[in-house]
Amino acid sequence: MLPRTGIGTDVHAFADEASGRVMHLACLEWPGVVGLEGHSDADVAAHAVCDALFSAAGLGDLGSQFGVADPRWAGASGARMLADAARRVRQAGFEIGNVAVQVIGLRPKISTRRREAEAAMVIALGAPVSVSGTTTDALGFTGRGEGVAAIATALIVPRG
Amino acid sequence: MLPRTGIGTDVHAFADEASGRVMHLACLEWPGVVGLEGHSDADVAAHAVCDALFSAAGLGDLGSQFGVADPRWAGASGARMLADAARRVRQAGFEIGNVAVQVIGLRPKISTRRREAEAAMVIALGAPVSVSGTTTDALGFTGRGEGVAAIATALIVPRG
Amino acid sequence: MLPRTGIGTDVHAFADEASGRVMHLACLEWPGVVGLEGHSDADVAAHAVCDALFSAAGLGDLGSQFGVADPRWAGASGARMLADAARRVRQAGFEIGNVAVQVIGLRPKISTRRREAEAAMVIALGAPVSVSGTTTDALGFTGRGEGVAAIATALIVPRG
Repeated sequence: MLPRTGIGTDVHAFADEASGRVMHLACLEWPGVVGLEGHSDADVAAHAVCDALFSAAGLGDLGSQFGVADPRWAGASGARMLADAARRVRQAGFEIGNVAVQVIGLRPKISTRRREAEAAMVIALGAPVSVSGTTTDALGFTGRGEGVAAIATALIVPRG
Repeated sequence: MLPRTGIGTDVHAFADEASGRVMHLACLEWPGVVGLEGHSDADVAAHAVCDALFSAAGLGDLGSQFGVADPRWAGASGARMLADAARRVRQAGFEIGNVAVQVIGLRPKISTRRREAEAAMVIALGAPVSVSGTTTDALGFTGRGEGVAAIATALIVPRG
Repeated sequence: MLPRTGIGTDVHAFADEASGRVMHLACLEWPGVVGLEGHSDADVAAHAVCDALFSAAGLGDLGSQFGVADPRWAGASGARMLADAARRVRQAGFEIGNVAVQVIGLRPKISTRRREAEAAMVIALGAPVSVSGTTTDALGFTGRGEGVAAIATALIVPRG
């Protein structure tokens, strides 16, 4: 049984500091870091992983699976979305091999809590997750601190 | 026989509305949507998939395989390029496992014709294709509606 | 034993022409091409591949493995980083299946030395490497010639 590959990216803009919105990223809350705007908790890492999984399984994307404006997902946590994505991918007949996600941006510094983030995402997904971070050398919207991007790849395999 | 992974991205700018150029994306024509500039039909999704396949197979890229300014590819459809890329990858001794491509931009809304796009790309490629869509929260050139990007991954396997 | 997938991106800004810094990309020196800024030799292709390998293996990222400001890596070549990344991934119990990296930018033109770049990266990594190139149709920081980006995917497999 040949494994299948999938890919997903996501971007959210930083919220206004006055909004009081707190950063949620990679299934962690980051107190003291201004959050990202979004209908859900705007966890770009979790969203990119969901999209990578859905695309590997041929199940569409975050929008078609969850509905970006669906009131049931208002404020939804990345962990809840991940868990539900994993459930749908397994229901479609696949095992999740592994997932890797890279967070691209100035804040927060993933390196300070990388293992904690991986542990939180592993619990949500029930499969191996790698979390990494990088910056873009002051270039582009991620380099200017206007938003955070994430890019993820997933490998799944049809069940026997 | 270990499978091989590949990756490809592509970007095209929106044509001037006065050009009358129509959008071609993911092997579909999108009447009423302003098209993208390009020597070929500027199908960023098809191009990203071609590059993902070529890179998985170690066959170079769109430029080295097709020649970006080659008159034979003037106005060439994404479907024709995909079919030819698949042929070359198979001739090089590989089976195509699956391909996943995410379209990043404001227009067109992939969600409205996602299954149709997948069906068209599957026919061109003769292998499973997932098509998904996302936006960048008004950030960057995709968020400002200056162009459309696509990112693709492919999994192929050497033939027995 | 299911293979594992990983992903990595990297971006560096062009150095000032007056700096005399020469381009190092994909384990090649490019005489006559203005270089990229960075603590190391700023080889975005090599760095993206390192991050793809580390994420596939669950080993963190360039920063956590090498330390972005570590004096031991000042001026370090992409080839040295790749060789060290490969060693660490193998020490962690994996074989490297293949790696694919796409360079996104105006300069240098990868197509002019693609096979040479692949050969240099294969030597550093001891595994198959595909190198490809693309541009972003004059959009974004890569399209304006402010910097060069690279995106890589890796497939590795746990040893027997």
